[in-house]
Amino acid sequence: MDIGADDFAELSPLLEELAGFSESGGPGVTRLLYTKAWLDAQMFLAERMRSCGLEVRFDRVGNLYGRLAGSMPGASVVLTGSHIDTVRAGGRFDGAYGIAAGLLAVARLKEVYGTPVRPLEVVSFCEEEGSRFPLAYWGSGNVSGMYAERDGSGIFDHEGISLEEAMREAGFGLSSQPDSRRSDIGAFVELHIEQGVVLERMGRRIGLVESIVGQRRYSLTLSGKPNHAGTTPMKMRRDALAGAAEIMLELEERAWHAGDPLVATVGRIEATPNTPNVIAGEVRFTLDIRHDDELELERFSQGVLDASRFIAESRQLTLDIRSWLQTAPVQMDSQLVKVLQGVSAGMGITSRRMASGAGHDAQVLAGICPSAMLFVQSRDGISHSPEEYTMPEHLQEGAAVLANCLRQLAYGEEGLR
Amino acid sequence: MDIGADDFAELSPLLEELAGFSESGGPGVTRLLYTKAWLDAQMFLAERMRSCGLEVRFDRVGNLYGRLAGSMPGASVVLTGSHIDTVRAGGRFDGAYGIAAGLLAVARLKEVYGTPVRPLEVVSFCEEEGSRFPLAYWGSGNVSGMYAERDGSGIFDHEGISLEEAMREAGFGLSSQPDSRRSDIGAFVELHIEQGVVLERMGRRIGLVESIVGQRRYSLTLSGKPNHAGTTPMKMRRDALAGAAEIMLELEERAWHAGDPLVATVGRIEATPNTPNVIAGEVRFTLDIRHDDELELERFSQGVLDASRFIAESRQLTLDIRSWLQTAPVQMDSQLVKVLQGVSAGMGITSRRMASGAGHDAQVLAGICPSAMLFVQSRDGISHSPEEYTMPEHLQEGAAVLANCLRQLAYGEEGLR
Repeated sequence: MDIGADDFAELSPLLEELAGFSESGGPGVTRLLYTKAWLDAQMFLAERMRSCGLEVRFDRVGNLYGRLAGSMPGASVVLTGSHIDTVRAGGRFDGAYGIAAGLLAVARLKEVYGTPVRPLEVVSFCEEEGSRFPLAYWGSGNVSGMYAERDGSGIFDHEGISLEEAMREAGFGLSSQPDSRRSDIGAFVELHIEQGVVLERMGRRIGLVESIVGQRRYSLTLSGKPNHAGTTPMKMRRDALAGAAEIMLELEERAWHAGDPLVATVGRIEATPNTPNVIAGEVRFTLDIRHDDELELERFSQGVLDASRFIAESRQLTLDIRSWLQTAPVQMDSQLVKVLQGVSAGMGITSRRMASGAGHDAQVLAGICPSAMLFVQSRDGISHSPEEYTMPEHLQEGAAVLANCLRQLAYGEEGLR
Repeated sequence: MDIGADDFAELSPLLEELAGFSESGGPGVTRLLYTKAWLDAQMFLAERMRSCGLEVRFDRVGNLYGRLAGSMPGASVVLTGSHIDTVRAGGRFDGAYGIAAGLLAVARLKEVYGTPVRPLEVVSFCEEEGSRFPLAYWGSGNVSGMYAERDGSGIFDHEGISLEEAMREAGFGLSSQPDSRRSDIGAFVELHIEQGVVLERMGRRIGLVESIVGQRRYSLTLSGKPNHAGTTPMKMRRDALAGAAEIMLELEERAWHAGDPLVATVGRIEATPNTPNVIAGEVRFTLDIRHDDELELERFSQGVLDASRFIAESRQLTLDIRSWLQTAPVQMDSQLVKVLQGVSAGMGITSRRMASGAGHDAQVLAGICPSAMLFVQSRDGISHSPEEYTMPEHLQEGAAVLANCLRQLAYGEEGLR
């Protein structure tokens, strides 16, 4: 391999510049869809792409592409990139890293190897996080056709501005602009920070994402009787909080027993009346359950809900269950994962196959082309926070692995399916 | 027994009238110490006492007494009554019932039996709930001497008014007024609603309070790591909420094992950041532990805290424990309880010896004279609520038991210790 981490000394300064495009005031980076900070960032990237000799274009929803044409007529595109938007007060690496590293990788490939066989493109997807409007993957979802029937009307941000209005305000959504939907992509490789602790704890440098987990989220409400904590004997209680505690431990024990990659979490809880000397009459809490196998996910979720019903009944509590999010797991392309693994190994870099516990654009692109992801370590697993951090040497190493993967895919002899 | 429930037809109308003395607006009864509603209620009771032929006096802090003089010179006083103040939006029975029933009982005894051997007094204590100022038992605590060193300065309500200022505003706190402290009481019997479910569930009409529980209250803070719920494998978590759940169940199991009268409750919980897809990094929750035996209370509490420390350690969580309330259990006078039991049995009324899980003026009076309590049923155990309710026939029956107890104590031949 001829491209190494040393070739990406520009990466940290580029991420630093990108972090500058943020709503003022808060800590961290806030770059919400179609805001001024967002538009400035996309325009900055477009200029940078141009200066690297890439053909630049925006599509109708504001996804930005930089293209290096290939020599083979009609060959499908090798695409890399990630999303430019952030959560409120997010970090500087989530999304931006995949774009910046992709841009520099394509530029370096052009410098070293010239014209590829297949076209090479880097994309800055307009939106993934769902931070401004109550939907996510607006960028990749328009590319895949998932949002083909939606124009953004009827979806509003906290200030009552519709997605359609915001899009037009930013200069997009016009019928004269190129349709977002694509069918010419032969492979998508997304480089991203892990946003978890697995690589760090295991001492591996590169995560090879084999699958992206499916999710189930539920709100559970347990109702008992809010009696006096002093005058109600233990055996006469209908304590909703004690019932919630039993369900929480049951969930944890089942999740341990199920093993990786299943994870299950109660992250939110609210007791009523929430007073030290009153037995809780009502407790609401959430379940967040994830697995990369749909059958296992469904089996586990139903098992937990059945157990919760049993616990509630045995304590004379009523249980209301509301399901509010269901997404299916997505498998990454196994051939593509092998390519990424081979490249990492060839560079002497430790890697680990893993499931992604968080959602990513790659799961949407997987619907229309072979897709895979590379992870680099996130310090302490902290993300969606100004404290998000990955060491420069890890960032550069990830970019080098990506570059060598893109080289193999776009410059190689072997065909892509 | 010559006095029966039928003699107390006036009780419900009297309680109805008392409930009318309340801050306007809210549901239920709000009668906070030294407010206009409070003063009007005390003045109304004073007038009612006078009309029953009792000598009326207020002491320095606003406790109101109605006295029926006895024939034996120097004999100690037989006292009954309860507190006139309420919690915010409280019920019409908590406190008021013991005063109204006591007043009517003394009046009826005077009508039927004339002058007693010992003086008979009914008291309307000024304050017990701790609802306006951050202290409780201001009435009985001044009688017992518990508050002998305090003038109410330096203690403020939510509006910044000092207890001393409020007392003077209501016309009390003057050195010309009778000292509150007393040493002439031979027995105190307090009639009160149970504020619990034991009598109702057991189908008993009268509770004979043998003891009032001591209390321990703690705030526990568990700290772990607030990681992503999707990307953090189960075995790499430091989940503060799962730790709290384990402690809550441990507490409940130990309390069941300890058996009555021990009760232990987690009534308040707060998780941070309290977000469905983030593992809780910090959880604060309270422990409320009660028992009528100090050694058992202390042993149980320390056992729970030790177990909590062990659970925290095994989960790599840090645990901070803050103790914010400790009161010792108080035993009622066993001879007096026997008198109450004998009277109930003699009237053919079912009773049950029990511990009071809530605090009462009788625990303060117990420091200066033989004291005991009678409970009547509370529907569903609901108290400190506008929904507080006891059936009129139960109220009248309790008043009749009280009257016959007072008769035995004040008109009988046997001496009081």
